[in-house]
Amino acid sequence: MQTALECIPCFVRQALEAARFVTDDPALHERLLREVLGTTARMDMSHCPPVVACQIHRTLRDMTGVADPYSAIKDRFNRMALDMLPELSAMIAESQDPFGLAVRLSIAGNVIDLGVDGGITESIARQSIKNTLHEPFEGDTNELKQSIDAADRILYLADNAGEIVFDRLLIEQMPTDRVTLVVRGGPILNDATIEDARSAGMCELVEVIDNGSDAPGTVLEDCSEAFKKRFAQANLVISKGQGNFETLSDNQANISFMFKVKCPVIASHTGYAMGTHVLMSPSVVDH
Amino acid sequence: MQTALECIPCFVRQALEAARFVTDDPALHERLLREVLGTTARMDMSHCPPVVACQIHRTLRDMTGVADPYSAIKDRFNRMALDMLPELSAMIAESQDPFGLAVRLSIAGNVIDLGVDGGITESIARQSIKNTLHEPFEGDTNELKQSIDAADRILYLADNAGEIVFDRLLIEQMPTDRVTLVVRGGPILNDATIEDARSAGMCELVEVIDNGSDAPGTVLEDCSEAFKKRFAQANLVISKGQGNFETLSDNQANISFMFKVKCPVIASHTGYAMGTHVLMSPSVVDH
Repeated sequence: MQTALECIPCFVRQALEAARFVTDDPALHERLLREVLGTTARMDMSHCPPVVACQIHRTLRDMTGVADPYSAIKDRFNRMALDMLPELSAMIAESQDPFGLAVRLSIAGNVIDLGVDGGITESIARQSIKNTLHEPFEGDTNELKQSIDAADRILYLADNAGEIVFDRLLIEQMPTDRVTLVVRGGPILNDATIEDARSAGMCELVEVIDNGSDAPGTVLEDCSEAFKKRFAQANLVISKGQGNFETLSDNQANISFMFKVKCPVIASHTGYAMGTHVLMSPSVVDH
Repeated sequence: MQTALECIPCFVRQALEAARFVTDDPALHERLLREVLGTTARMDMSHCPPVVACQIHRTLRDMTGVADPYSAIKDRFNRMALDMLPELSAMIAESQDPFGLAVRLSIAGNVIDLGVDGGITESIARQSIKNTLHEPFEGDTNELKQSIDAADRILYLADNAGEIVFDRLLIEQMPTDRVTLVVRGGPILNDATIEDARSAGMCELVEVIDNGSDAPGTVLEDCSEAFKKRFAQANLVISKGQGNFETLSDNQANISFMFKVKCPVIASHTGYAMGTHVLMSPSVVDH
């Protein structure tokens, strides 16, 4: 999926928010913003949005020397999600459709996306997750369950810190010995890395690997050879979040996409209204 | 009021929206956007937002050769407002506080601002105006009435097309022989020019002049000598809209500002929540 021109003002906003996570110095904010404007003016827009975002955030890290601007906020959202975990686990245990509810909660966790809204607070995220069953949902959870039951090698591509705790609820409903969880190879926005998987208690539950890339999606040409091999061998890929969708929606693999529609470009591309919680079964994705 | 860094992503969005009003050619949209990004990267940000916006829109006009990208949409909003006029005039005539209601409706008309939201539709604007009495309002309409009664020379600085029809409702409540309506000196965004004043029936009601500038605000140093003289002679200035506030909030003249708070930068600068309808009496403005 190519970068749309509508993505550009969003990148500029995102860069300013990231700059403010790194430093309180307004002169540095301005310098960073000017640099990003200049870079974006010359940028190849034929790539998908996470490739462009990745270049912008590399620039920010180079200019500030701060490797992980979102470190503190990732910890906060992990803690918030872990705090909600016992209550949500109990809800799933009591549900008549535990798998279906776990899918819904995992997609609800996708609201914790600082790329889309750098101002999202814990209380907004908490409320949004609690409201999840009243949100519009599109998808067939039974179909996903059948795909999982039929698959030997399942790759679960995580998206964000905090959200990864909600993924745990879903992975607990899956045959964990056949699931490998994949996180980003380096810090980018609030995307989950190996530290977040560890905080979420994932490393005791399933095999966890990283994809070797610091793009906020799965840009295969930027990933490690080891990951690419695993991706090619998987017979089911479960892909969380808009960034993974943007980078893999044209891929021919057997991928089930799960995300909340959070921007007009994705809404227009998928045909789903803003705010919709989407589960796309492999057969539904248009290749 | 200086341009905030938060204004920059907003300028980029505005430029893309303006480009789309001018042409359907995606290659030209991209070229315009790149040009604006490059220009903004090097821009002096010590100016107020309308000065920066003015430079960006001059670039757009130069590159496309289209003098007034918003011409058709200005006409549409003028017609929509004229269509609502009889009903609103009747409401005012029947009101126990005609002046107060006219103030509220005139501020409600400030929702028609394509600089803030290029996607605003007639039905959204219509609904918003109808809801005006339920919107939060800050200000003292009696105080404004007293200032008007005491003033010989009143300058009323209009803001947008469409909105100018709602200004007519307020000006009809004023001593029209002492009021001069001021419009922009040239097309910029959907700001009202002399044609819009004419469409709104203002030229038969009061003296109408233009300020000689195509900034989306009142940038005195960019205005004509004739306007500057009138500004200096006025003993009351009524200033509509965020753009006029941004450019005149530091001015020492006797100015009453009226606008709807439509962006976080203005909300933070004024201390009023987003969406508030504000009437600032001269004595209230912090000099």
